[in-house]
Amino acid sequence: MISFKVVVIHLSQYLYLVLLLLLLLPLFLNSSVLSSFPSHKIPRLTPYSSIKKLNLRNHHDKVFSASASAAVSAKHLKTYFYEQTLDHFNYGPQSYATFKQRYVVNSQHWGGSNSNSPIFAFFGAEEPLDDDFDFIGFLSDNAPSFKALQVYIEHRYYGESIPYGSIDEAMKNETIRGHFNSAQAMADYAKVLLHVKEKFSAHNSPIIVIGGSYGGMLASWFRLKYPHIALGALASSAPILYFDNITTPHNGYYSIVSKVFKGTSENCYKTIQKSWSEIDKVASKTNGLAFLSRKFKTCSHLNNSFELQDYLDSIYTEAAQYNLQPNDSVKMVCDGIDGTKGNDVLGRIFRGVISYKGKYDCYDTNEYNYPSQTTVGWHWQTCSEMVMPIGVEKNGTMFPTSPFNLHHFTNQCMGLYGVPPRPHWITTYYGGHDIKLVLRRFGSNIIFSNGLKDPYSGGGVLKDISGSVLAVTTVNGSHCMDILYATKTDPEWLVMQRKEEIRIIKGWITKYHYDLKALKK
Amino acid sequence: MISFKVVVIHLSQYLYLVLLLLLLLPLFLNSSVLSSFPSHKIPRLTPYSSIKKLNLRNHHDKVFSASASAAVSAKHLKTYFYEQTLDHFNYGPQSYATFKQRYVVNSQHWGGSNSNSPIFAFFGAEEPLDDDFDFIGFLSDNAPSFKALQVYIEHRYYGESIPYGSIDEAMKNETIRGHFNSAQAMADYAKVLLHVKEKFSAHNSPIIVIGGSYGGMLASWFRLKYPHIALGALASSAPILYFDNITTPHNGYYSIVSKVFKGTSENCYKTIQKSWSEIDKVASKTNGLAFLSRKFKTCSHLNNSFELQDYLDSIYTEAAQYNLQPNDSVKMVCDGIDGTKGNDVLGRIFRGVISYKGKYDCYDTNEYNYPSQTTVGWHWQTCSEMVMPIGVEKNGTMFPTSPFNLHHFTNQCMGLYGVPPRPHWITTYYGGHDIKLVLRRFGSNIIFSNGLKDPYSGGGVLKDISGSVLAVTTVNGSHCMDILYATKTDPEWLVMQRKEEIRIIKGWITKYHYDLKALKK
Repeated sequence: MISFKVVVIHLSQYLYLVLLLLLLLPLFLNSSVLSSFPSHKIPRLTPYSSIKKLNLRNHHDKVFSASASAAVSAKHLKTYFYEQTLDHFNYGPQSYATFKQRYVVNSQHWGGSNSNSPIFAFFGAEEPLDDDFDFIGFLSDNAPSFKALQVYIEHRYYGESIPYGSIDEAMKNETIRGHFNSAQAMADYAKVLLHVKEKFSAHNSPIIVIGGSYGGMLASWFRLKYPHIALGALASSAPILYFDNITTPHNGYYSIVSKVFKGTSENCYKTIQKSWSEIDKVASKTNGLAFLSRKFKTCSHLNNSFELQDYLDSIYTEAAQYNLQPNDSVKMVCDGIDGTKGNDVLGRIFRGVISYKGKYDCYDTNEYNYPSQTTVGWHWQTCSEMVMPIGVEKNGTMFPTSPFNLHHFTNQCMGLYGVPPRPHWITTYYGGHDIKLVLRRFGSNIIFSNGLKDPYSGGGVLKDISGSVLAVTTVNGSHCMDILYATKTDPEWLVMQRKEEIRIIKGWITKYHYDLKALKK
Repeated sequence: MISFKVVVIHLSQYLYLVLLLLLLLPLFLNSSVLSSFPSHKIPRLTPYSSIKKLNLRNHHDKVFSASASAAVSAKHLKTYFYEQTLDHFNYGPQSYATFKQRYVVNSQHWGGSNSNSPIFAFFGAEEPLDDDFDFIGFLSDNAPSFKALQVYIEHRYYGESIPYGSIDEAMKNETIRGHFNSAQAMADYAKVLLHVKEKFSAHNSPIIVIGGSYGGMLASWFRLKYPHIALGALASSAPILYFDNITTPHNGYYSIVSKVFKGTSENCYKTIQKSWSEIDKVASKTNGLAFLSRKFKTCSHLNNSFELQDYLDSIYTEAAQYNLQPNDSVKMVCDGIDGTKGNDVLGRIFRGVISYKGKYDCYDTNEYNYPSQTTVGWHWQTCSEMVMPIGVEKNGTMFPTSPFNLHHFTNQCMGLYGVPPRPHWITTYYGGHDIKLVLRRFGSNIIFSNGLKDPYSGGGVLKDISGSVLAVTTVNGSHCMDILYATKTDPEWLVMQRKEEIRIIKGWITKYHYDLKALKK
């Protein structure tokens, strides 16, 4: 199953809508809200499959080097399925239903039963686990020096871990899809990890949980909620503060995208800033859409200006979020835009597209929106609990003002699923407000790692909270770079960031063994 | 609604069964298991209504003094209802159903909005909140010196906080009763507390949660799961280690009951120890049950020896669990038993009953088993998740050997409710294994208070875990004494115990205000 990045949308997206509607049609309880369907969507948080696409074009060295490591690791992966409880928080008969949850183990470097060697557990996020193996290298890169058992657990309702086997079937049933949420997923992880400890006779093996993006949020929350199961967490690019009104204004994401573009080229930034109204202006003229369709070589005729604007929005945010060095994706866009002189703003924008995407006969403006497990699953998750109020409230970005409107968002979700989101649940269950005050004297052993050029770092924990709830930030990093496979071309700061993370995790494990010994006396 | 103490049963209880069955008949999915209904039940954990009964007979000074304080406090209690979500962990349409949850506020001593004065929040347990006001004095006794707002929150499915209004109606529906569990209850408390903070403009007021017994477990778990809502927890007599195989053998409860009796009178202890087989011996003779019925003046004819044995078991465990000083309940039983000379073991046992219960025309051996919100609710809770494996495995107690048998217990619950308990869920979700190793470097601000003469202290945290996860134990205390109203006749050690708890809580609040100030700079 190939999954596509879901782009940030702060402009209306009719094509996306049409596709999504087709897909979700059976769910509709109240299709009359269709006409007022507004503009918000919350970008998915796991970037790996996008990196795949990027890598294929732009990161040959990286890909080659990482693929080699991944291929070695792949030989030692063993797949298991755990009979998982559908509803952990209910004792009605229907909650006893089970589904098969996939987890994958690599024991190549493990110290063995009763060795007290650690377990590295990767928390799958909103995509099939298969997408992770080619990119998530942190576990296998570091397993040898830790003699660690590697465990990769798939998130419920993704990949091969879906009740009824397919996301379409699971999502059709309003009761079944109700169990598709983070608290249930974390309870799944808890049960699988206890099961793995049992299965591998690893009672005293400390578990370090690792996740990126949404999976990073799960990892940090898991250390807080299940400290008896995980000794520590590495939460890479986890925007746990991008909920409710913890971080206001809600500009973070788009501000950072804009800053990265501005830092790359002031001219590029300004051209993009101008382009949105230019597109609207042209589109409003007679045959304007036909003109735009030709100008941007769209594969199908544009139905409105938003389709194009949304496509461009996706390109810019993707370029910033996955701005892997040394082949800087934002620079690729800007090199195109800046490479053409003259006043033809739209021509320059299209040059940026070509520079980033490559030369094609036509460009599919819907490229980012085709339905997949990820688009369908993540849309549900954001429409139920993962309500991240990403918007452009006060401007100062290269995007048009477009505040997150909870009322519209709620209507949209109600229209699709018949139930409203619970926008305050994440902060009720996991916290987030006054995090420094709360966690200063509570909790331990969490690393929040963030690259400050990652748009999602706008909702990340960027400063140390206590002596063991730590922020590891890098000025140049983009999304989740630290947990990808190490390659020969990695910049020095990334090498150092990973070293620092390893140093901290080693400290946790050393203390754990010290405590274990002291208490067993 | 009057609730009765549910007794510890390690002997079969047919009368209880008959009554429970009548009550739960509509729920039966498979009544064929009836014939194999085994012997285990887990005692309820909130003692207050039993204290009420005891107090009326044995603790006149205490009652008078406590009632006076309770009456003063009662004038300032204001009742509210919160529209509570039925299922916090599900986004199916049915989970959006709500019920009215009762909470009661006393703002008499509160420092007021924006004063940053603390909130003392009492977590209701397995009984109507009404039962608490006459006895739980910790909040109102200490509110003046803290200028604290007092909030008492009723546990879902008890008192006036029941979906469909009545426990019978709620329990009839297998889907509705599925939501009756601790994780949902704690999420309720989280939502009510956030609501109260909002309602009283108390954003910076630290919350201290307080609970006794099952409510004490909830309080300690709440600090662990919701540190962003509660600054600290006072968990009185909370046997959080009496789950799964954390504490083995599972004798703790009966061992302590026996130790208390033995410490009071070796002769009394030995007489009780002998009596169980004596009862069986007599019962097995022709007209033996008629003889026993007359001998013990039972209000109705005994159908079997277990009825009597269970009644006596209830008396002994109640006497030990609620052994309030200065009128020592165990001493009352033993004074009766020891006051008669000769070899008539059963005659001496009956003297013990009279001494404890008072003189009546007849004694209702079913007294402890009448259905109430508490018996029905707590039975469900123990049959779903609160599986405390209380038994007599290796003897050395004054009770007959009767190990906890999970297989039988599961069958019993299956028979009643159609679903098996999940005996490992509590340790999966809340932990408990290796608690010192886990919480040594995680978490803070919990007091586990235990009287070592409380049978439930056998599953309590009796040693400090870290500098701020503390055990406050007293050699002489019984169940939950520290959170009852202070009275003039309280022994010195109890006065000192409460002082120590207050000192610790004051320390948390001082640190909190220090942090608040430091972080606002």
